[in-house]
Amino acid sequence: MEKFDVTILGCGSATPSPKHFTSSQIVNVREKLFMIDCGDGTQIQIRRARQAFARINHILISHLHGDHCFGLLGIISSFGLLGRTAPLFVHAPQEMWKILEQELQFYCRDLEFSVEFQGFDPSRIQTIYDDRSLCIETIPLKHRVPCAGFLFREKPTPDHLNREMADFYGVPMWDYNRIKSGGDFTMPDGTVIPHSRLTTPSDPVRSYAYCCDTAFNPSMAGQIHGASLVYHDCTYSNEDEDRAKLHHHSTAGQAAAIARDAAAGQLMLGHFSARYDDESVLLQQARETFPNSILAKEGLTISL
Amino acid sequence: MEKFDVTILGCGSATPSPKHFTSSQIVNVREKLFMIDCGDGTQIQIRRARQAFARINHILISHLHGDHCFGLLGIISSFGLLGRTAPLFVHAPQEMWKILEQELQFYCRDLEFSVEFQGFDPSRIQTIYDDRSLCIETIPLKHRVPCAGFLFREKPTPDHLNREMADFYGVPMWDYNRIKSGGDFTMPDGTVIPHSRLTTPSDPVRSYAYCCDTAFNPSMAGQIHGASLVYHDCTYSNEDEDRAKLHHHSTAGQAAAIARDAAAGQLMLGHFSARYDDESVLLQQARETFPNSILAKEGLTISL
Repeated sequence: MEKFDVTILGCGSATPSPKHFTSSQIVNVREKLFMIDCGDGTQIQIRRARQAFARINHILISHLHGDHCFGLLGIISSFGLLGRTAPLFVHAPQEMWKILEQELQFYCRDLEFSVEFQGFDPSRIQTIYDDRSLCIETIPLKHRVPCAGFLFREKPTPDHLNREMADFYGVPMWDYNRIKSGGDFTMPDGTVIPHSRLTTPSDPVRSYAYCCDTAFNPSMAGQIHGASLVYHDCTYSNEDEDRAKLHHHSTAGQAAAIARDAAAGQLMLGHFSARYDDESVLLQQARETFPNSILAKEGLTISL
Repeated sequence: MEKFDVTILGCGSATPSPKHFTSSQIVNVREKLFMIDCGDGTQIQIRRARQAFARINHILISHLHGDHCFGLLGIISSFGLLGRTAPLFVHAPQEMWKILEQELQFYCRDLEFSVEFQGFDPSRIQTIYDDRSLCIETIPLKHRVPCAGFLFREKPTPDHLNREMADFYGVPMWDYNRIKSGGDFTMPDGTVIPHSRLTTPSDPVRSYAYCCDTAFNPSMAGQIHGASLVYHDCTYSNEDEDRAKLHHHSTAGQAAAIARDAAAGQLMLGHFSARYDDESVLLQQARETFPNSILAKEGLTISL
């Protein structure tokens, strides 16, 4: 299977703490690296995780709270010091350009690469990245400020041709692509050889939904339906549901309910409040509703 | 002796590395906390060093390179999240206000404390802080952008009165302060009792000179003459003197020459380039010229 990994750089909330760095992750799809969010201190974590820092070409920012974006300028600056020439794409709420443009002009005047800002409207589903094998959509979330998550969807690949069978039935080479894409083969005598006899299925498509920061938002379950992995805001325990509502975050139980309703493969809980010494409480609560839940932690890599 | 400590939070250069955080330190003079510089990730280091984060009232920024100031916004924001109400004084090159003001308006609209920006001109010696026991001056440095170091000077305190001698000679209480400040006492019969017989000396004044970032700058030795501790740019080894000149930094030998010419008490080397796996080379080179040299490292606290 082609690589589709998520590496956690930071899964704390609000401010760095002795236990957690602030929000950041790297998604590696077939060696294309995407950074999601970058709080203060993210570049320290990139080095520790031995991630190929220089190969990050896209940085996605979910919303404009400091614990998700204060590390961006440092990363851009460090890229400059390391002699980067390839453009860096920053996908963020459109509003961010107002301040980022000024900061770049002030602090990063001599970059040898361009910072291509691609703003989006967090309140709408938008495709912000699209290539032959992958597309990325925003997921409108419910937070105190406009906020979007990100849905990484692999694109289906053609089925694998069974060469022996294809040769046995005399399928001409120029017809392979059509067969692989789902077509049957009609022999000269009219016999129809079904697609399923001539091919083996391609790998199932995988998807990853990053859903942070958000209050309980049941309406998004449809968009992320069937996601192989969901990373969800789990700032609070179930007992602190009032606090979660007040601060527009989610509880463990709510995160699990989203994963269940979305028929997700696996749920990773993150964005932990510093108030919990032992996050296993959150895990237990999530597992009551969605058994295949895990806790994020710094340095963890999940392969979808 | 009253407390006068320097704690190193970061002593690397340019970008965070596996070995070092970027420039930051906390100076504690009689429980008044001053932060000098704050690169990306500084607030992580504050927590690790168990520094009383909330009691930092003054942040001093030497110059506007990212590895010295990109952590500032995160720190201000975290102070806000922690419910700070006391004003925070930021002393920095005047030019910084242009961008900092915008960043505060964009990211930190709801702070319950004021950020009091006190700009200075890095090319001139200026007193940027002055109270009964301490004053802080800027030290014009030689760098690629306007840059100032900081000289923390304790103010002399009066000598200690020897009560037994004072009583023996019948010194009236209302005259104590004059005696402690250096005066002699004239007895009724005209005998002059010298100050030195009536007092014990107060603690010698101490001073700390932060000299980063800078190329070799012999002219500053006069201003920092007699400093108890000098922290000096030691980005490069002696073999890399050309590179030091090119990038407006100093070598180990140059840092030591400054400490020697300034008749400093002790030299702490910092701002290490990531190119040296083993910084003891730098230490040896410095010690050839100034034996009482040490290497800075994250978490180190020196008591003057």
